[in-house]
Amino acid sequence: MTTMQEQTDLTIDFATMSNQIMERVDVLALHTEQEGMMTRTYLTAAHRGAAGQIAAWMRDAGMTVRRDASGNVIGRYEGTDPGSPLLMTGSHFDTVRNGGRYDGPLGILLPIGCVAEWNRQGKRFPFAVEVVAFCEEEGVRFKAPLLGSRAIAGTFDTRVLDNVDDQGITMHEAMLGADLDPVHLPTAAVARGKIAAFVEVHIEQGPVLQEEGLALGVVTAISGATRYMLELEGVAGHAGTVPMMSRHDAAMAGAEIALFIEKRCNAAPGLVGTVGQFTVPNGAGNVIPGRAIMSIDIRAGEDTLRVAAADDITMEIERICARRGVRANVKKTYEAVSVGCADWLQQRWTASLQRHGCAPRSLPSGAGHDGMIIAAIAPIAMLFVRCGNGGISHNPAETMTAEDAALASRVFVDFVENFEVPAAGQA
Amino acid sequence: MTTMQEQTDLTIDFATMSNQIMERVDVLALHTEQEGMMTRTYLTAAHRGAAGQIAAWMRDAGMTVRRDASGNVIGRYEGTDPGSPLLMTGSHFDTVRNGGRYDGPLGILLPIGCVAEWNRQGKRFPFAVEVVAFCEEEGVRFKAPLLGSRAIAGTFDTRVLDNVDDQGITMHEAMLGADLDPVHLPTAAVARGKIAAFVEVHIEQGPVLQEEGLALGVVTAISGATRYMLELEGVAGHAGTVPMMSRHDAAMAGAEIALFIEKRCNAAPGLVGTVGQFTVPNGAGNVIPGRAIMSIDIRAGEDTLRVAAADDITMEIERICARRGVRANVKKTYEAVSVGCADWLQQRWTASLQRHGCAPRSLPSGAGHDGMIIAAIAPIAMLFVRCGNGGISHNPAETMTAEDAALASRVFVDFVENFEVPAAGQA
Repeated sequence: MTTMQEQTDLTIDFATMSNQIMERVDVLALHTEQEGMMTRTYLTAAHRGAAGQIAAWMRDAGMTVRRDASGNVIGRYEGTDPGSPLLMTGSHFDTVRNGGRYDGPLGILLPIGCVAEWNRQGKRFPFAVEVVAFCEEEGVRFKAPLLGSRAIAGTFDTRVLDNVDDQGITMHEAMLGADLDPVHLPTAAVARGKIAAFVEVHIEQGPVLQEEGLALGVVTAISGATRYMLELEGVAGHAGTVPMMSRHDAAMAGAEIALFIEKRCNAAPGLVGTVGQFTVPNGAGNVIPGRAIMSIDIRAGEDTLRVAAADDITMEIERICARRGVRANVKKTYEAVSVGCADWLQQRWTASLQRHGCAPRSLPSGAGHDGMIIAAIAPIAMLFVRCGNGGISHNPAETMTAEDAALASRVFVDFVENFEVPAAGQA
Repeated sequence: MTTMQEQTDLTIDFATMSNQIMERVDVLALHTEQEGMMTRTYLTAAHRGAAGQIAAWMRDAGMTVRRDASGNVIGRYEGTDPGSPLLMTGSHFDTVRNGGRYDGPLGILLPIGCVAEWNRQGKRFPFAVEVVAFCEEEGVRFKAPLLGSRAIAGTFDTRVLDNVDDQGITMHEAMLGADLDPVHLPTAAVARGKIAAFVEVHIEQGPVLQEEGLALGVVTAISGATRYMLELEGVAGHAGTVPMMSRHDAAMAGAEIALFIEKRCNAAPGLVGTVGQFTVPNGAGNVIPGRAIMSIDIRAGEDTLRVAAADDITMEIERICARRGVRANVKKTYEAVSVGCADWLQQRWTASLQRHGCAPRSLPSGAGHDGMIIAAIAPIAMLFVRCGNGGISHNPAETMTAEDAALASRVFVDFVENFEVPAAGQA
């Protein structure tokens, strides 16, 4: 009995751990601005309450906790000696309005649970483990995203301090109200080279893993994106009196463009194209649309794929509009190259997956994440965990299972326990 | 000289007449609610001013003028004897907001000009000619169209008297304010059989005649129409994370439906289909549309053509949505059968056209007109006059030429001078 007890103490009960992770996700979800909804935006009372709760769990897990100048909550689990290199992990604890509870918190609470077990076992690594609860990623309150990771990467654009929320409060005022002095923001920055690796556990926010019956996936890259706003100008006319062949219908041109985008992006796996906005301004049932406005969003893990698709789409817009006698005003509103996950980190994740009987599956992240900012100062990688409900996210219907949380915890523990800080200049 | 003078007196100077018609159109356009725009809605000061002006021109032309209980201004040019049958013509003098000046007034001012010449010549016919200036056709102020013709046809729905304008004034109040007592509305009705024929001269409001280089056309029918509102419900999702093959994009389904409507209506001349409204409610560039709303308007001069197209379109909506996993809620919001113009009247118009060197061209009217209401009590027909600017109408850019007005006047005079009241039961 005694021997068995001792043996149990040195293994981890992942079922119990994952249940605690799921319970803590639910507890954190109580910190919300809107009753009955999951809304927690930067520096609101709900947000500060969540920060305090996370800090308490970090301390319980045996970490020393600090809050940086942007409001990131950082728990440090010291390595074998104080000068140890640093493995950083974490995710964000802000949310979109009426969002889901796993988007972000999973990547904070899962590592905290693992650290608690290492701490219980008295296990230390030749590197420190820091769990960062990023204060702001979604960009909801002040229309500026990724504030926490930008503070750490040293790329915080202080012009956004003047941004105002819906109540007219500036970010600057909100920070002072939360005892954060923007003057100290530079102190949050971490020098390039100080972080051996940054890894993030996150729900997939898509349907791929669920559709393939896989619990976990290794992220290859955070997709680059190209966005356009397209204004089409045709000729308005009476719906009853203008024959089909004489029309210059802006909405029909838009419909044809939308279907081309769909077809073109269908042609290559890993490429997606979306027309999220489509409007006929002042449209009336009996008037042929003289104008139509649509958004175009093209993403891919591989930049060449995205750029080729964007080129084809803009060329096809010209062709469709020329044929229809419709004028197109194409405005590129955003372009970001893809941020690759480090190959050696992807290989380590894949090895951990395989040691736990998981099929190796790599996929790009179509959504943005803090890692794409941290990539400026450290190699990054991500582990995706399967979502339920067809991958729905940014929505109360977002879900995942405790079983998947347990498996992700096993793989995370495996990854960290087998992690080796690369020799200088090697990664 | 004397002989020539006498001969000139018995012919009509159509160039001068058409110039006067065009000048009067411009004078009438000064009666507007909005400076710099052509807006004249039911019973406003501008509308009452226009009615007074029209009545004065009718009197100048030798007509006796009455105002009926709905506000129609009716000029009567008596026949050879007081019991003569009645040939009725006319059009409306209300407008849409910021509309064109010829839509309606042409069909009032052109016949007044012709009557003035007959009066000058002392010419009488074995039938009376009444020129009706219909008070309301567009339905702008009280969201109820064709009020003047409904009053004459005896189909005025008195429930619309409670309709309010943008200022909250009921139609009932507006009528009393204009010295019209709604109680007397039934007195405006004309018994079936009392009107030998109703004919209307109107601008085409479409591009067909202009494209074919023809000044005039004979209307075959006022098109029937079927209208739907279509609500599509797919699955919203993250624009970056849901692969193309896993999507249930409501807007893409809508785009495919729109293009099918276009293709289907292209397949048959005289058939038109329009998606005038297309919206993704709360659409965002980075969200796959979970909902889309679109209007569908299908029209044709021949009902069988329209019904077959509407059937095909609703079936295709089902097929497209089933394939895409999108739910369609199709609501028919309006259906009206086509109103045919009387064959014998079309033949008389065509004969008049040919006597003046015009190619005989028949075409349906895709827009509604007062004739479709008057058809309940009398045979109807219409003469279309070519529009400029690609047929644009309901717009300040609406235009037509004095030359076409002159030719239309010649044809109108020819039509009336050759008109024969059909024997009872013959038409």
